[in-house]
Amino acid sequence: MSTEKTALTPATHTTPPAKFSHGVKKGNILQVAGQVGFLPAEEGKAPTPAGPTLREQTLQTFANVKAILEEGGATWDDVMMMRVYLTDVDHFAEMNEIYNAYFEEQGLKAPASARTTVYVGLPKGLLIEIDALAVLS
Amino acid sequence: MSTEKTALTPATHTTPPAKFSHGVKKGNILQVAGQVGFLPAEEGKAPTPAGPTLREQTLQTFANVKAILEEGGATWDDVMMMRVYLTDVDHFAEMNEIYNAYFEEQGLKAPASARTTVYVGLPKGLLIEIDALAVLS
Amino acid sequence: MSTEKTALTPATHTTPPAKFSHGVKKGNILQVAGQVGFLPAEEGKAPTPAGPTLREQTLQTFANVKAILEEGGATWDDVMMMRVYLTDVDHFAEMNEIYNAYFEEQGLKAPASARTTVYVGLPKGLLIEIDALAVLS
Repeated sequence: MSTEKTALTPATHTTPPAKFSHGVKKGNILQVAGQVGFLPAEEGKAPTPAGPTLREQTLQTFANVKAILEEGGATWDDVMMMRVYLTDVDHFAEMNEIYNAYFEEQGLKAPASARTTVYVGLPKGLLIEIDALAVLS
Repeated sequence: MSTEKTALTPATHTTPPAKFSHGVKKGNILQVAGQVGFLPAEEGKAPTPAGPTLREQTLQTFANVKAILEEGGATWDDVMMMRVYLTDVDHFAEMNEIYNAYFEEQGLKAPASARTTVYVGLPKGLLIEIDALAVLS
Repeated sequence: MSTEKTALTPATHTTPPAKFSHGVKKGNILQVAGQVGFLPAEEGKAPTPAGPTLREQTLQTFANVKAILEEGGATWDDVMMMRVYLTDVDHFAEMNEIYNAYFEEQGLKAPASARTTVYVGLPKGLLIEIDALAVLS
């Protein structure tokens, strides 16, 4: 496996708001940057979150993480850790329902990744952010 | 070392509240999910935190992290990073005292892991959450 | 590459407030602990943040992360992930400006690392904390 560091930049993704990569891969390690529920980029349009519900944002966030994994030749099965940042403790149960249904649908072949969920502040309008660490086979 | 991803699920642990693993191991990387101070699982009983003090919760959280490390054939010496989530800045000094005494007792042979401590929201009743990344020899 | 775990302790750094290492390296993985904007250590003086501006603290934090990377034979180019903890959503735009200018100056040869930024509580007087995961070539 190449030990060169490469950027993972899905065509659908909005440009990061600063000099960071949506994902990077080096050797067998793939790191996905914090993703939020931004809809696929449209030229000349500011990044817009799916919404307004937690469900819509969460599913779009999953899609955004998955696109980066795939750009790096990885799948959900390679993910070791997901960090879920919510803004409201009252969203925990609903997020878990969405989470479980989504990963049920994805048909994982390997054990589910580890996860940490904490409650933080996020920019206005964003309800969830997720990043992921994957180890490729 | 096997490059297959395996779930690490200590018998003492309560079932995760969603489709994630308490820990996963793949190759030489072991990731422990966010652990809280839940007492060992009892059938038919909801997860209950040790408590009510920060000391009790912190020591139980350490025990829960350690059980996952051991399930994966690792020890505290293999831990590279611990993320400590507290809910109250005023708990920092006390947590550090507990932390230092605990790791003193554990008799580490390798240098202590790196650590980040930040202050976030956690579900009601929880004062601390810790996750850990280990690299096996 | 050695699979022994080593602590990375730049001479300029203040002693950690607990039994953790500013950085650790094992095999090709290097983890930098959460760094804040503390000025270089002075004997007999408590850790003091650069300041009072976000710019001063952020640049000092970058310097503190970089010193640990260098102690482990790594550079910014090896960094896969940076976690940026801010205390105030209103600091996001300014932090990004500082971030971009800093990494422009550093003359990265590899793609920029991934990044997650969230808003948390930090001890009084601290506006930013950053940790980093690097994979060496």
